Amino acid sequence: MQDVEALLTAVKNGTLSVADAALQLKAAPFLDLGFAKLDLHRKLRTGMAEVVFCQGKDDRFLTEIFRRLYAANGEVLGTRCSPSQAELLKQTFPELDYDSLSGTVLLQSVERKAREGVGCIAIVTAGTADLKVAEEAARTCEFFGSRTVKIYDAGVSGLHRLLSRLTDIQSANVIIAVAGMEGALASVIGGLVSVPVIAVPTSAGYGANFKGLAALLTMLNSCSNGVSTVNIDNGYGAAYIAVQINRLAVKGRVN
Amino acid sequence: MQDVEALLTAVKNGTLSVADAALQLKAAPFLDLGFAKLDLHRKLRTGMAEVVFCQGKDDRFLTEIFRRLYAANGEVLGTRCSPSQAELLKQTFPELDYDSLSGTVLLQSVERKAREGVGCIAIVTAGTADLKVAEEAARTCEFFGSRTVKIYDAGVSGLHRLLSRLTDIQSANVIIAVAGMEGALASVIGGLVSVPVIAVPTSAGYGANFKGLAALLTMLNSCSNGVSTVNIDNGYGAAYIAVQINRLAVKGRVN
Amino acid sequence: MQDVEALLTAVKNGTLSVADAALQLKAAPFLDLGFAKLDLHRKLRTGMAEVVFCQGKDDRFLTEIFRRLYAANGEVLGTRCSPSQAELLKQTFPELDYDSLSGTVLLQSVERKAREGVGCIAIVTAGTADLKVAEEAARTCEFFGSRTVKIYDAGVSGLHRLLSRLTDIQSANVIIAVAGMEGALASVIGGLVSVPVIAVPTSAGYGANFKGLAALLTMLNSCSNGVSTVNIDNGYGAAYIAVQINRLAVKGRVN
Amino acid sequence: MQDVEALLTAVKNGTLSVADAALQLKAAPFLDLGFAKLDLHRKLRTGMAEVVFCQGKDDRFLTEIFRRLYAANGEVLGTRCSPSQAELLKQTFPELDYDSLSGTVLLQSVERKAREGVGCIAIVTAGTADLKVAEEAARTCEFFGSRTVKIYDAGVSGLHRLLSRLTDIQSANVIIAVAGMEGALASVIGGLVSVPVIAVPTSAGYGANFKGLAALLTMLNSCSNGVSTVNIDNGYGAAYIAVQINRLAVKGRVN
Amino acid sequence: MQDVEALLTAVKNGTLSVADAALQLKAAPFLDLGFAKLDLHRKLRTGMAEVVFCQGKDDRFLTEIFRRLYAANGEVLGTRCSPSQAELLKQTFPELDYDSLSGTVLLQSVERKAREGVGCIAIVTAGTADLKVAEEAARTCEFFGSRTVKIYDAGVSGLHRLLSRLTDIQSANVIIAVAGMEGALASVIGGLVSVPVIAVPTSAGYGANFKGLAALLTMLNSCSNGVSTVNIDNGYGAAYIAVQINRLAVKGRVN
Amino acid sequence: MQDVEALLTAVKNGTLSVADAALQLKAAPFLDLGFAKLDLHRKLRTGMAEVVFCQGKDDRFLTEIFRRLYAANGEVLGTRCSPSQAELLKQTFPELDYDSLSGTVLLQSVERKAREGVGCIAIVTAGTADLKVAEEAARTCEFFGSRTVKIYDAGVSGLHRLLSRLTDIQSANVIIAVAGMEGALASVIGGLVSVPVIAVPTSAGYGANFKGLAALLTMLNSCSNGVSTVNIDNGYGAAYIAVQINRLAVKGRVN
Amino acid sequence: MQDVEALLTAVKNGTLSVADAALQLKAAPFLDLGFAKLDLHRKLRTGMAEVVFCQGKDDRFLTEIFRRLYAANGEVLGTRCSPSQAELLKQTFPELDYDSLSGTVLLQSVERKAREGVGCIAIVTAGTADLKVAEEAARTCEFFGSRTVKIYDAGVSGLHRLLSRLTDIQSANVIIAVAGMEGALASVIGGLVSVPVIAVPTSAGYGANFKGLAALLTMLNSCSNGVSTVNIDNGYGAAYIAVQINRLAVKGRVN
Amino acid sequence: MQDVEALLTAVKNGTLSVADAALQLKAAPFLDLGFAKLDLHRKLRTGMAEVVFCQGKDDRFLTEIFRRLYAANGEVLGTRCSPSQAELLKQTFPELDYDSLSGTVLLQSVERKAREGVGCIAIVTAGTADLKVAEEAARTCEFFGSRTVKIYDAGVSGLHRLLSRLTDIQSANVIIAVAGMEGALASVIGGLVSVPVIAVPTSAGYGANFKGLAALLTMLNSCSNGVSTVNIDNGYGAAYIAVQINRLAVKGRVN
Repeated sequence: MQDVEALLTAVKNGTLSVADAALQLKAAPFLDLGFAKLDLHRKLRTGMAEVVFCQGKDDRFLTEIFRRLYAANGEVLGTRCSPSQAELLKQTFPELDYDSLSGTVLLQSVERKAREGVGCIAIVTAGTADLKVAEEAARTCEFFGSRTVKIYDAGVSGLHRLLSRLTDIQSANVIIAVAGMEGALASVIGGLVSVPVIAVPTSAGYGANFKGLAALLTMLNSCSNGVSTVNIDNGYGAAYIAVQINRLAVKGRVN
Repeated sequence: MQDVEALLTAVKNGTLSVADAALQLKAAPFLDLGFAKLDLHRKLRTGMAEVVFCQGKDDRFLTEIFRRLYAANGEVLGTRCSPSQAELLKQTFPELDYDSLSGTVLLQSVERKAREGVGCIAIVTAGTADLKVAEEAARTCEFFGSRTVKIYDAGVSGLHRLLSRLTDIQSANVIIAVAGMEGALASVIGGLVSVPVIAVPTSAGYGANFKGLAALLTMLNSCSNGVSTVNIDNGYGAAYIAVQINRLAVKGRVN
Repeated sequence: MQDVEALLTAVKNGTLSVADAALQLKAAPFLDLGFAKLDLHRKLRTGMAEVVFCQGKDDRFLTEIFRRLYAANGEVLGTRCSPSQAELLKQTFPELDYDSLSGTVLLQSVERKAREGVGCIAIVTAGTADLKVAEEAARTCEFFGSRTVKIYDAGVSGLHRLLSRLTDIQSANVIIAVAGMEGALASVIGGLVSVPVIAVPTSAGYGANFKGLAALLTMLNSCSNGVSTVNIDNGYGAAYIAVQINRLAVKGRVN
Repeated sequence: MQDVEALLTAVKNGTLSVADAALQLKAAPFLDLGFAKLDLHRKLRTGMAEVVFCQGKDDRFLTEIFRRLYAANGEVLGTRCSPSQAELLKQTFPELDYDSLSGTVLLQSVERKAREGVGCIAIVTAGTADLKVAEEAARTCEFFGSRTVKIYDAGVSGLHRLLSRLTDIQSANVIIAVAGMEGALASVIGGLVSVPVIAVPTSAGYGANFKGLAALLTMLNSCSNGVSTVNIDNGYGAAYIAVQINRLAVKGRVN
Repeated sequence: MQDVEALLTAVKNGTLSVADAALQLKAAPFLDLGFAKLDLHRKLRTGMAEVVFCQGKDDRFLTEIFRRLYAANGEVLGTRCSPSQAELLKQTFPELDYDSLSGTVLLQSVERKAREGVGCIAIVTAGTADLKVAEEAARTCEFFGSRTVKIYDAGVSGLHRLLSRLTDIQSANVIIAVAGMEGALASVIGGLVSVPVIAVPTSAGYGANFKGLAALLTMLNSCSNGVSTVNIDNGYGAAYIAVQINRLAVKGRVN
Repeated sequence: MQDVEALLTAVKNGTLSVADAALQLKAAPFLDLGFAKLDLHRKLRTGMAEVVFCQGKDDRFLTEIFRRLYAANGEVLGTRCSPSQAELLKQTFPELDYDSLSGTVLLQSVERKAREGVGCIAIVTAGTADLKVAEEAARTCEFFGSRTVKIYDAGVSGLHRLLSRLTDIQSANVIIAVAGMEGALASVIGGLVSVPVIAVPTSAGYGANFKGLAALLTMLNSCSNGVSTVNIDNGYGAAYIAVQINRLAVKGRVN
Repeated sequence: MQDVEALLTAVKNGTLSVADAALQLKAAPFLDLGFAKLDLHRKLRTGMAEVVFCQGKDDRFLTEIFRRLYAANGEVLGTRCSPSQAELLKQTFPELDYDSLSGTVLLQSVERKAREGVGCIAIVTAGTADLKVAEEAARTCEFFGSRTVKIYDAGVSGLHRLLSRLTDIQSANVIIAVAGMEGALASVIGGLVSVPVIAVPTSAGYGANFKGLAALLTMLNSCSNGVSTVNIDNGYGAAYIAVQINRLAVKGRVN
Repeated sequence: MQDVEALLTAVKNGTLSVADAALQLKAAPFLDLGFAKLDLHRKLRTGMAEVVFCQGKDDRFLTEIFRRLYAANGEVLGTRCSPSQAELLKQTFPELDYDSLSGTVLLQSVERKAREGVGCIAIVTAGTADLKVAEEAARTCEFFGSRTVKIYDAGVSGLHRLLSRLTDIQSANVIIAVAGMEGALASVIGGLVSVPVIAVPTSAGYGANFKGLAALLTMLNSCSNGVSTVNIDNGYGAAYIAVQINRLAVKGRVN
C-alpha cells in the first residue's frame, strides 16, 4: 500500500498499464488452494514464515500445505502434529524432524538447524506436566532463531528450586512462564525480573482447575507488573511473542 | 448423647422418673425465639460460643439476639456489622467495641480482653485491600483466646517482603493466608511451612477476578501441600478453624 | 537460612572459605534430574517425604523418580497411579504394594507398615462412589503414620447411618468428609463435632453436578463452623492437612 | 376446547349462528389492556386466580391491573411489591394488607381471610436470612387456602433444632424447604419424610455462593429422593406447587 | 424414636435390661456391608423400597447389594445399569428384566408385574433423543405402582403434536415433562394444566446447550406456575416425586 | 473501491493529478472528531444512517455528535439515552422526541415522521417487563421506514393469548420475539411461522435467570427452525436486522 | 385454522357431519410412529420439508423415518449422519448421496439436483477447521434451492484474503459467517455489507475457547450492525434462516 | 543478592562486622508502614518506580503512601483515583495533576513532564467507551518516558477508520489494542503488524458481554500471532508491559 504513489506515477508515465496497475492494487499475496489460502508473503512482511497448526487438518490437505510452504520458505514448522500425521508427512519428507513430546515437526536444512540463536528467551515451568507446552514454545523460539534457556520443574511450592536459577532468569530478554494447577509461577517471576513475562496457563491439573481455567485466571489477575497472558496450552503463541520481543531487544528499531 | 446409659441406669434405679428422662432425651439445647433458634449450649459442647452474623438481620431481632447470648455466655462477637447496626447495639450496650474496618463488634469484660492468647496463629495478607478480611480473622482468633501475629502487605510480587518475616511465619501453629487478585500467596507460604495453611480468597481485584473467583480457584488448586480453603472474604471462618487447630496444638488430645 | 550468623562467624574465623560459604548459601536442597527437581530434604524439613503424583508422568521418568526418592527416604508413596504404571514399577520394585481402587502405590519396609498409627483421623464418605477418594486419603494418612477410622456410605439422605457412628466421629482429632452429588455431609458433620473438618468434594454425580462443582460450592458455603475445603477428588491433599493437624494434637508445639 | 362438539351441534341445530360460533371458538379468555393481557378465566380453569408480580411494573399499569383482577376474582395477591408500590396501591385500595418482610400485598374480604386452611404445608428455613422468601411462600399458601406450619432457623449446622420439630414436618402433605448458603437443608429433610419436598434456594450468603447458585446446585443434586427445585428466592413458585399437591392430597382425583 | 417412652417404661418395669434398651436406642435400621449401608426399613417407612443406582458400583459389590435387597423387599429396581452389569446380574438372577434403552433392571414376581397401576402420571417428551430419560421415569413409576401415559416427540416446534394429546395430559394427576435442547416444553405444559409439572432437563443437544444447562435454566425460570425441576437426565428422580404426588392424589392424607 | 479503474484511467488521461488520486484513494469516508470517528457515508452505503448509542458517552461529546450527524443525514436516532442526556440534548434541539420507556431519542422532520412504513415487522413480547426492549426495537424499525405490528404480553404460559393473534404474526415478513425469564416464546413462534424470527433475550427475571443468560441459551438452542439470536436486551440490533430483511422482502434484489 | 368459518358453514349446510367436522378441527397434520411424530405437512406450510437430525437416532427408527419422509416429500435431507448410519441407510436407499466432511445425506432425484439455485447466499469461513460446519450449511442451502458462493479460509488474521473476495460477498442477499477461535470474522463482514449476516460460531479451537463459547460471545456482542447468531456448529440452522431470507429477497411478499 | 561474595570478602577482611553483614543480608529493601510495605528500591531494580493503585485505599493511608513515594522517587503516578481521593491529595500536594477521565493522578516536576518520550507505543481503541482505559494506558506510558500515538474509535465495524491510520500503527514498537464489546480489534491489528500487540479487553458493553468476559475470551483466542492479553480494563498493566518492550527496542540488551 505504501507504494501507491510510485505505482500511480508509473501509470502516469505510461511505464505501467492501467490494467496491470489495477491488478497489482488488488493482487492478493497468498496462494488459494480452495480449501486453504496460504500466506506466502508473511516471511517477507514479518520475518516469520507461516506455521502449520496440524490438529484437525485433513490428510488430503496436510501434505499439500507442507509442500507449498516448504517450496516458498525453505523451512516449515508444524505444531499439534499427531504421530499418525507425522508418519504421513515422513512419506513425502523423509528428513522430517518429529518431537512426540511437544507434537512439533520441523523441515529445515542442516545448516539452519546448526545456526546459533540470538538474544535470550528463558522458558520456566512449574512442574513436569507442563513440559510438552514448554517444549512447543522452545522449539518455536529456536525455529525463529532465538536462543533459549530452559528451567523446568521450578514451581513455587519449592521456592529454592526457582531462586537457584535466578541469574539465568534475570539475564533473559523475555521470560515464558508455563504453569498449570494454580499458575502462581508467573506472579512470582514477575516480581523478580524487569523484562516482560509471557504467561502460559496449562491444562495440567484436575477438579476445580477446570482444564486450565484456574491457572488462566491467576495469570490474568497477577499482582506483579509485566505479566501478559496467552491461551491455555498455547506454547506456540507465547513463543511467537517472545521472539518478537527478543528481536526488538537484539536489533532495536529506528523510532 | 454419650450419657444415655447413665440416664437409663438412673431410670432403672428410680432416681429419675420416666417423664423427666424422656424430657431430657428430647430437650433441645437451644432457645427458640420464633424468628431464630439460639444455640446456648454451643460453648459447653465446643468451647466456642455462638457468633452473630449481623448482615441482613432485622433491627427488631438483632438486639434481642445479642441480649440473650450475652446473658448466656458473658461475651458476644458479631461479624459483618454495619455502622448503623453498631449504632443501634450501642444504645443497649454502651460498652460495645466496634471496629469499622473489620465490621466486628465485641461485648466482653475488661479482664477477658486483657487476657493473653495461647499458642500462635500467623495472619498474612497479600495487599492492603485484604486488611478488612484479615482483621475479621484476627479479632475472631483473639475473641476465642488465641495469640496472633500479623504480617500485612507481603504479596508475592515482592518476595523479599514475605521472606523478611519468614521466622515469624514458621513459628506459628497454623497460618491464615489472606489474598485477593490471583491469590498466589497461599501456595508460596504452603511451600515454606510445615503446619496447616488456611487460605482465604478475598474479593479484592477487578475484571477477570470475578469477585474473588480467581483467588478461590488458585487456592483450591495450590501446588503446595497443606493448604485448605474457605469461602471468599470469610475471615471469620478461617479464624474458627485456625483456633480449633491452635487449641489442639496447645492442649493436645487423649487419643 | 537460620544458620546465617554461624556461617558468617565461621568465615570470619577462617574455618570456612569464602567460596565454600557462598556455595552453601546458594546450595539448593534438591536433586536436579533435568526433567524434574526432587526435594530430598523435605522429610527433614517437614517430617513428610515428597509424594509422587504419577498421573501424566512419562514412563521414562517415573521409575527414576521412585528410585531416587526410595534411596533418599527409605519409603515412597505414589498417588493417581494407573494399572500400567504400577505394572512398570513392579518390574523394578517387586515388593510394590498397589491398590487399584485408590490408585496408590507404596514402597515401604514390613516393619514400617506394621507400625501402629498415632492419634486419630476419621474418614467419612457419603456414598459408595466416594470410596476411591476416601481410600486415597486413608492410605496417605497411614503412610504418614496417623491412625484412621473409616465410616463409609453414611450420607445425609439416611441420617441414622451417620448418627449410629457419632461416637467414633466425635473422638477423632480431625475429620475428613468425602462427598459427591450435593456434598451436604460436610455441613452436617461440622455441626456435630468440635474439631476441624477437611471437606473433599468428589466428582461423583451427573448433570448439574458439573463434575464436582456442586459439592465444592456446598462445602465452601457451609453453614457450619470448622469446615475447610480442598480440590475436587483431592483425597491426598485432605489427608496431608489432616496429618499435620493430627500431629499437632498428638505432639503439641512449644509456642 | 372440550365443548367443541356441543358447540358444533348447536350450530347444526341452528341454535347458534355461524358467526357467533366462530367468535366463541376464537374468543380469548383474557382481557387485553394493550400493555398486558389479564387471564381472567384462570381461577375457573385452575382454581387459582392470577397473581401479580409487581416488580418492574410501571406505576401507570399497576393500579389498573389490580382493579381489573379484583373486579374479576374478588381477591388479589401481589408479590415482590416495593414499599412505594404498596403506598400507591393503598391510595386506591385502603384495605390493602402489605407485609414488608415478604413484599406481598393482599386484597381480600375479612371472611375469606378468617377461613381456615385445608391440609398442611410445612415451611422450613435454614436461617433467619431466609425468612422473607419463606414468608412469601407462607402468604401464598394461605391465600390459596392451604394451612401452613412454620419451622424457621432450623439449619443443619444444629441438627437438634430440626429434629425437635420432626413430628410437625412428617405430618405435612408437602414440605417447602427454604435455604441459602449451601442449601443442605433440603437433602436432610428429604431423608426424613415420605412426601414431596419443594426446595427453594435463596440468595442468602456471599462469595462462592454466587447469589444462590451454590444452594441451587445443592438442591438439584440432592442425594435424597423426593426433592424438586424452583428458582432462587422463588417462594411464590414453591408455594404454588405445594398448594397443588396439598389439594390433590385433600381432595384426591378420580383417575 | 416415637416409642421412647414405651421403651423407658419397659426399662423401669424391668422387662427390658439397660443394655438392651441402649442397644435399641442406638440400633440402626440398616445393614452395614462395610462398603455400603443398605436401608432395609425404607419400604416400611416410606412405602418405596431402596433403588440401586448401578453406575460406578464395583462388580464385587453390585450382586451382593441386589441379593440383600431382593431378600428384604421381594423386588428390586436398578437404574443406570450398563449392559455388562446387566450381564453380570443375570448370572445370579436369570429372571432379571433389563431394558437397554433406559438402562433399568427389574427383579419382580410375575404377579407384581401384571398388577395394574393406580392413578395417572403423564410422561411427555420434546424429542426422540429424550426417550431414554423418559423410559427411566416410566419404568420407575410403574415399579412403584403408578399408571403412566406416554406422549413422546411432542416438542413445541410443532404445537399441534402436543395439543392433539391435551386431554390425556390434562387428565393426569401429575406431569413429567422431559426435554433437552432449549427445554421450552415444561413452560408450555405448565400453562395448559392445573396439576404439578415435574420438569426433567436432558443433555440432548449440542454447543450452547452445555450438556443440559440450557434446558435446566429454562425450566428453573419457567414463566408458568406449577413447574419444579430435577437434575439433568434424572428420570428416576422425577418419577419418584411424581409417584409421591400420585399416591397423595389417590389415597389422600388425614390432615 | 469499485471505481479504482476509473480513477486510474483519469490519472492516465491527465484529468486527475497523481497527488489528488492518492488523496482520494486514501480518503476516509468519516469525520474524525478526535474522540470519535463519525461514519457520514453509511447512509449512502447501506441506506441506514449511523445511530448513536448514548450510554456512557461524555456530555462534552454527545451534543457534538448529534449536531454533526443531524447536519449530514437530516435525521438522527439515539438509543440508551438517559433522562439527563435527553435534557441536555433538548437544550440544543428543542424538537427532540424522547421516549423514556425505550430510552430512545429522535430528531426527524414532521413529514418524515408522518411517512407510512413499508412491509411488516411483527414485534411480540412474552411479558410486560419486556416492553422497554420491544419499544426500542419498534422505534428503530419505524425510524428506518418499516411498518410494525405489536403483540405484547403474549407469553407461552397462556398460549391462547399468542394464538389469538396468530394471523397478525403469520402475515409479517419477519418476527422480533422479545422474552425474558425462560425465553420459550421464540421457539413457539418459530414453530408457527415460515419467515425468520429474530429472538431478543431480555434481562427480565431473577435468580437462575442470571441477567438474561437463561433466555439467551434457550433461544440459541431453539428446537424450531428459523430462529437466530442477538445480545441480551438488544432491541436495536434485532430491529436493524429485521429492517434489512423486510427491505429485501419489499424491494427484492437483482441476483 | 383459517378455514374455520368455511368448515362451520359446511356443518350448518349439512354437507359435513358434526363428527367429521370435530375430527378435522382436531386432526393433527403429522404421522405418529409412536417413537416419533413426523411433520408431513411442513413442506406445504413453509415450503421447506422436515429435515432429519440423525445424531443419536436409534437404528431401528432411522430407516423408517427416511422411508416415510421420502414417500411424503420426494426428497430427504439428513444432517449429523455418522458413517455407520450412512452405511445403514444405503442398504435401503442405494442412491443415497453421503458427504462425510459435512455429515449430510441427500435423497433427491437427478433432475432436482441439477436444478440451479435462486438468489445468492455467501458462505465465508475463517479457517479450514470450520469447513465441516460450512459444508453442512452449503448442502442445506442447496437442498432448499438457494445458490451459494463459498469463500473459505478468509479469517481476519490476513485481511487481504477476505478483501480480495469482497465483491462476491457484497453481492449476496445474505451472508453466513462461520468462525471458531475468537470468531471476529462476523464483525468484520458485518461492517462491510448491507445485508443480514448469520453468524455461526464453531467449536474449532482449544483452551479458553471453551468449545465454541468464545466465538459465540464474540458474535453476540458484535460491534457491527446486522449480525445475528445461531448455536455453536449449527450450520444447518444458519442455512435455514439464510434460505428464508434469500427467498424473501427473490420472491418478495405482498405486504 | 549478587553482591554476596563481595560482602563475604569484606567480612573475611574485617572491613565489615558479622553483625552488620547479617543485617545487610536480611535488610528488606522496603519501608514497612505497618498497613503497607512500600517498595522504595523498585525504581533502582527495574527502572520503573512503584505506582499507587488508589481504589479501596483508606484515606488515612493514601496521603502517607504518596508522601513517602514522592520523597523516595521524586515523582508518583496513581491509578484508579476517585475525584474525592484526588481532592484529598490536592490538600497536601497542590501541584497534583488529576485526569478524571482516566482516573490517574501525577506528581511530577515541570521539566520531567516536558521531557519527550522515547520510542513509540501505539494505543488503538475500538470505540469511545474504551477511552478511559486507553487514557490510563497513555498516561502510564508517558509517565515511564515512552512516546505514544493515539488512534481512537477505530473499531472493526468500520475497517476504513483503522486502515486509514495503518502507517502510524505499523511504525510503533508495540501496540496496545483496547476494545470492549466483542474485542475483535486485537485480532485484526495482530494480522497487520509484525510487533507485539498487548490486548486490553474493556467492560464496555452489556448483556452477553458479561462485564468484559466476551472481549477477554476473544483476545485470548485470537487467530492472529503476536497477541497477548491482560486483565479486563487494565490499561495500566498493558502500558507497563508496552514500556518494557519499547525500552528493549530503544536500548537493546547485551545478550
